[in-house]
Amino acid sequence: MQYIAPLAQLIEHFRALPGIGAKTAVRLAYHVLDMEPAKAQALAQAILEAKEKIGYCSTCFNLTDQDPCQICASEKRDHSIICVVEQPQDVAAMERMRDYQGVYHVLHGALSPLEGVGPDQLRIKELLARLMDNTVKEVIMATNPSVEGEATAMYLAKLLKPLGIRVTRIAHGLPMGGDLEYADEVTLAKAMENRREI
Amino acid sequence: MQYIAPLAQLIEHFRALPGIGAKTAVRLAYHVLDMEPAKAQALAQAILEAKEKIGYCSTCFNLTDQDPCQICASEKRDHSIICVVEQPQDVAAMERMRDYQGVYHVLHGALSPLEGVGPDQLRIKELLARLMDNTVKEVIMATNPSVEGEATAMYLAKLLKPLGIRVTRIAHGLPMGGDLEYADEVTLAKAMENRREI
Repeated sequence: MQYIAPLAQLIEHFRALPGIGAKTAVRLAYHVLDMEPAKAQALAQAILEAKEKIGYCSTCFNLTDQDPCQICASEKRDHSIICVVEQPQDVAAMERMRDYQGVYHVLHGALSPLEGVGPDQLRIKELLARLMDNTVKEVIMATNPSVEGEATAMYLAKLLKPLGIRVTRIAHGLPMGGDLEYADEVTLAKAMENRREI
Repeated sequence: MQYIAPLAQLIEHFRALPGIGAKTAVRLAYHVLDMEPAKAQALAQAILEAKEKIGYCSTCFNLTDQDPCQICASEKRDHSIICVVEQPQDVAAMERMRDYQGVYHVLHGALSPLEGVGPDQLRIKELLARLMDNTVKEVIMATNPSVEGEATAMYLAKLLKPLGIRVTRIAHGLPMGGDLEYADEVTLAKAMENRREI
């Protein structure tokens, strides 16, 4: 016997999620069948609403449910400092530190010639556009401490230095090869504090 | 910064699923935001449809999208043998073996006084009702090889023997303390073959 069709489909959908193996997918599907109808509906609704309500900020390209996003719209933030990160998750990690008062720019990736990611695939043009009115004094490169992240930081530094903007790199307090998204707050704070000219 | 509301809600919903920790929930939520809208919609739809279309068979109480279920309705199955299992997942495991030609009865649990699960919380009355027309010759106890599963098998055996029905227990080829749902096909087949009178 195969699983009955609606169950098989649900298993398949869960299976397609990252880090969910075959047995976990089956377990999740049975769990959904076991849930109260209202709870299952709320789960489905949360998926739909997240997709519907969340888009990218037209300034910093972080995820947001308003445009510009809360950070870009805030007068309490220092708009003369832009912290450049690879992913929206990295903004969340930086914000957990509660120490940084500037704004962000999300590249949505890092340069990776092997995977066909060049400057045009990242939000680099949009970053340059933000620097045109001379209000930005410093750009902090907070890309991941990986080969691709380093390359991206170096590439951007070369691009921005001629504009007379201070370009810094968060310190390698981060373990090399790690992922900024999962760094702990203390390590991140240290890395921000030790940022250096590049 | 907290996560924006729709994202926070989605994370919370994923977090409530079994075996999904805080970081996995965040990863899944970001993945959903990254999905093509049609795919996210399909995922939500699969959850709703599974809940909507799948119910319990009024005969064997397995999950089904038709009533009676495919197995209970099949003329190819031997309706004189009923295999009693704890959960719908266990029926799926038995069917993967492709060896068993009888029908099933899903108890939806096992006796567990400590957790307040007595005979009235299981589908035992409904099992007895199925035995009333004397077409059933054998009932195979395929509850889990755990303390609760054994107790349930013994309890049912005591209940059914006076009715003159052969009551058997799948052999302890299954590792004790294990979970029938995750048994491999060969072990399960062996356990079926060595079932013994109780």
